[in-house]
Amino acid sequence: MRKFQIAVVGSGTIPDNSEEYQLAKNLGKCLADNDFIILCGGLGGAMKAVCEGVKESEHYVYGQTIGILPELDKSTSNAFVDVQIATGMSKARNQIIIASADAVIAISGGAGTLSELSFAWQLKKKILVLENSGGWSEKLANSRIDNSRDDKIIAVSSVDEVIDILEKILVLNDINRL
Amino acid sequence: MRKFQIAVVGSGTIPDNSEEYQLAKNLGKCLADNDFIILCGGLGGAMKAVCEGVKESEHYVYGQTIGILPELDKSTSNAFVDVQIATGMSKARNQIIIASADAVIAISGGAGTLSELSFAWQLKKKILVLENSGGWSEKLANSRIDNSRDDKIIAVSSVDEVIDILEKILVLNDINRL
Amino acid sequence: MRKFQIAVVGSGTIPDNSEEYQLAKNLGKCLADNDFIILCGGLGGAMKAVCEGVKESEHYVYGQTIGILPELDKSTSNAFVDVQIATGMSKARNQIIIASADAVIAISGGAGTLSELSFAWQLKKKILVLENSGGWSEKLANSRIDNSRDDKIIAVSSVDEVIDILEKILVLNDINRL
Amino acid sequence: MRKFQIAVVGSGTIPDNSEEYQLAKNLGKCLADNDFIILCGGLGGAMKAVCEGVKESEHYVYGQTIGILPELDKSTSNAFVDVQIATGMSKARNQIIIASADAVIAISGGAGTLSELSFAWQLKKKILVLENSGGWSEKLANSRIDNSRDDKIIAVSSVDEVIDILEKILVLNDINRL
Repeated sequence: MRKFQIAVVGSGTIPDNSEEYQLAKNLGKCLADNDFIILCGGLGGAMKAVCEGVKESEHYVYGQTIGILPELDKSTSNAFVDVQIATGMSKARNQIIIASADAVIAISGGAGTLSELSFAWQLKKKILVLENSGGWSEKLANSRIDNSRDDKIIAVSSVDEVIDILEKILVLNDINRL
Repeated sequence: MRKFQIAVVGSGTIPDNSEEYQLAKNLGKCLADNDFIILCGGLGGAMKAVCEGVKESEHYVYGQTIGILPELDKSTSNAFVDVQIATGMSKARNQIIIASADAVIAISGGAGTLSELSFAWQLKKKILVLENSGGWSEKLANSRIDNSRDDKIIAVSSVDEVIDILEKILVLNDINRL
Repeated sequence: MRKFQIAVVGSGTIPDNSEEYQLAKNLGKCLADNDFIILCGGLGGAMKAVCEGVKESEHYVYGQTIGILPELDKSTSNAFVDVQIATGMSKARNQIIIASADAVIAISGGAGTLSELSFAWQLKKKILVLENSGGWSEKLANSRIDNSRDDKIIAVSSVDEVIDILEKILVLNDINRL
Repeated sequence: MRKFQIAVVGSGTIPDNSEEYQLAKNLGKCLADNDFIILCGGLGGAMKAVCEGVKESEHYVYGQTIGILPELDKSTSNAFVDVQIATGMSKARNQIIIASADAVIAISGGAGTLSELSFAWQLKKKILVLENSGGWSEKLANSRIDNSRDDKIIAVSSVDEVIDILEKILVLNDINRL
């Protein structure tokens, strides 16, 4: 059976010692604990944090971190990416991260993250945002990006809640109960 | 001398008899009157409106409307597009519309427009939004998408003001006076 | 009525004083004389030559040279490109050049040109190659790239013959007589 | 330590009971036996064969088959792909397959494979072709696509030789001995 692929998006510039970094790292660890494949943009900040967290999971297996890079050069990825997808498509690679995901989770985030949330909304992906993480995640929590969908961006308050909801919408395929 | 290329972005689903359609059409006409090349996504709604407007300008010359299409098939463009750029890149073509522009103007707009405004912000393009047109144009008027830039999304209240500001920032290259 | 869009592909490294450069320039001039829109990769070598030739046509109008660039930065285009399409898609922009064309003409060419001819074959575009220009144009003249099509890559011996054939297959839509 | 990523390219239309299919399947198995990650276009024919072969290896671990798809829809992948990368970039996704690879192996192949070999040549990737497999692999064996490189496309006569050469050029990084 194919494993679920979860895209984690967020700012590429948060420093390693920040609260958001710790949050993203913890998210990565918990996603790996639950056997999800993690997709990200492969660079620094939240992308590095989530991959680093995956590596700290006891359930980690090689191949669980996929970095979808803007450059043609694979060596631009962060050190915690296992599989390096070098697109050479610049920021247009955001479409690939989102289209490849079964669900999208955002932490904080600026304009890059906003473009990813916009694509996710258009591609009818389930979107979860950490509601107290600042940036566009906080601004868009519990809202609709436009009227093309009836559901909302799901606001979650903790990493545990992320796992709980992913379990419901993906594993149990139980969207109606949300 | 190379002409300026202006990207116009907005909802692909506004009906032909709507106020926004008329506004976008008027914008297209005025841009053409002032010898700008118009870039858009090549499909319907605001994209069609702006191209239709261009054709009503007395200064219109063939090649003034460029449609940058999501599909591989050129024939998916609206009837008012002169030059059909068939990307086959789906929504990732939004990056191309923005990167090719000297300035970006938004009218109303949903998630697709929001992805374009996000790219425009990241690529340091000057962004003008019609402030009373609803959608993401209205929501983002006079704001910053993130802290990576000091300037703001410029809110304009009329098509005449669009032309006036483009004149200042492009033709006179007089950003400081804004 | 929409004008036909002709992609011209060839080596980006031929020097300005070479025979191929002169040939590509002459091709550009003749295409412009016949009111075609010229698409190319927007960089140097054959791409610059063909755009330079367009500008020497008495029928030239602004917008007749379209450069579809690999970079995000418009200023990477050659000086003879009117409309700069900045894709940020690296070599993947070759798909866009081909998909946007009503017919493809190749002069000489290395690996980049070969990728464009491969795309053109797959996208069912009419392909003309200058048979004595060397490179992949010469190697593929009068051949099929694979068995997915019944027709062949059309070998032409002069710029005049290019115009003659384009006239037949596009303007007269008279493919059967070839 | 990061595992090597090997792109396998070839015709998408070879039937399941053909000799080429068996060859590609055997190649997939041997690559997996040697702990390589396999990248492919994710669709049918040689792409399916190589992924199916991977699954028959005793060393197979989940995540060893990566399918880089032309469509936005993940479900277009073949059944043996573990990680589905949905690009929405049509044939331009060929750039991503190649840029992400440490080495490229071709079996037979038509125009699609030829575009991949062209990209691989431009991106300075080591290219191996199965010399008796027909198609463009056979035509380009022991040749140069253009003069931008001094080395040649490496012709191999068996799957064992593929593994042997990959071992030398990647694992031992011993390019000079080839």
